[in-house]
Amino acid sequence: MSEFHLDPRLDSDSLLVGNLPLCQVRLMDDSQYPWLILVPRRPELREPFDLSPSEQLELLKESRLTAQVLNEVFAPDKLNIATIGNVVAQLHMHHVARYKTDISWPSTVWGAVPAKPRLPAESQALLAQLREAFGEPLVTA
Amino acid sequence: MSEFHLDPRLDSDSLLVGNLPLCQVRLMDDSQYPWLILVPRRPELREPFDLSPSEQLELLKESRLTAQVLNEVFAPDKLNIATIGNVVAQLHMHHVARYKTDISWPSTVWGAVPAKPRLPAESQALLAQLREAFGEPLVTA
Repeated sequence: MSEFHLDPRLDSDSLLVGNLPLCQVRLMDDSQYPWLILVPRRPELREPFDLSPSEQLELLKESRLTAQVLNEVFAPDKLNIATIGNVVAQLHMHHVARYKTDISWPSTVWGAVPAKPRLPAESQALLAQLREAFGEPLVTA
Repeated sequence: MSEFHLDPRLDSDSLLVGNLPLCQVRLMDDSQYPWLILVPRRPELREPFDLSPSEQLELLKESRLTAQVLNEVFAPDKLNIATIGNVVAQLHMHHVARYKTDISWPSTVWGAVPAKPRLPAESQALLAQLREAFGEPLVTA
């Protein structure tokens, strides 16, 4: 049995918010956009439809919750939700809160401009706010 | 009651493959990638989670079928599946079959290079092939 290991690039580009039943929820370390990724904790996945049917439903549910949290905390003009995986093969689902005033609008964020990491104190404050918004389904221990 | 009207830009950029129970299936008129979009036939939608819960499940099902068709017909290296909507607000879900040798790899396709429309005979042949691959759930009349 192979085990789930987080891709090293996803690990270095993002911070753990917590775990939902299927996915790690991670905050991309880029101050230019509120940007969360869901990473199903299953080994050797590349496409969303590699998940079992029940896991696909769980991913839909966790994606909906993630969208609700982004809408509630950031009130964006638009959400961009995507599985790309051209660079990092491990299945991960982007949820990006976009504003008509953000640096890359109306382009997509992938490859648009280099990331600007947050200061550690900013990240910690944002992680706390996100954990509160996800609420009970999120396990942060 | 407002009715579904296809956004004029989606209409001009793509060709109708047929209708699934929820969505129009459309082929983007760009010879550089096999690229299908699903457009739920519901008025005034912007985000996937604006759909009712049962319609969200139907969209998941139709997205899975679309992914299967692209894998079967084109055997891509990767699928890119996304709802962006920064330019065209009407909810539409991209399914792009990507190859490591395509013109924009590993970048995303949105805004990467201008579209290269197909010749009409090429489009008709591809539409016929796609309709056969979708099979019975697709209504083309």
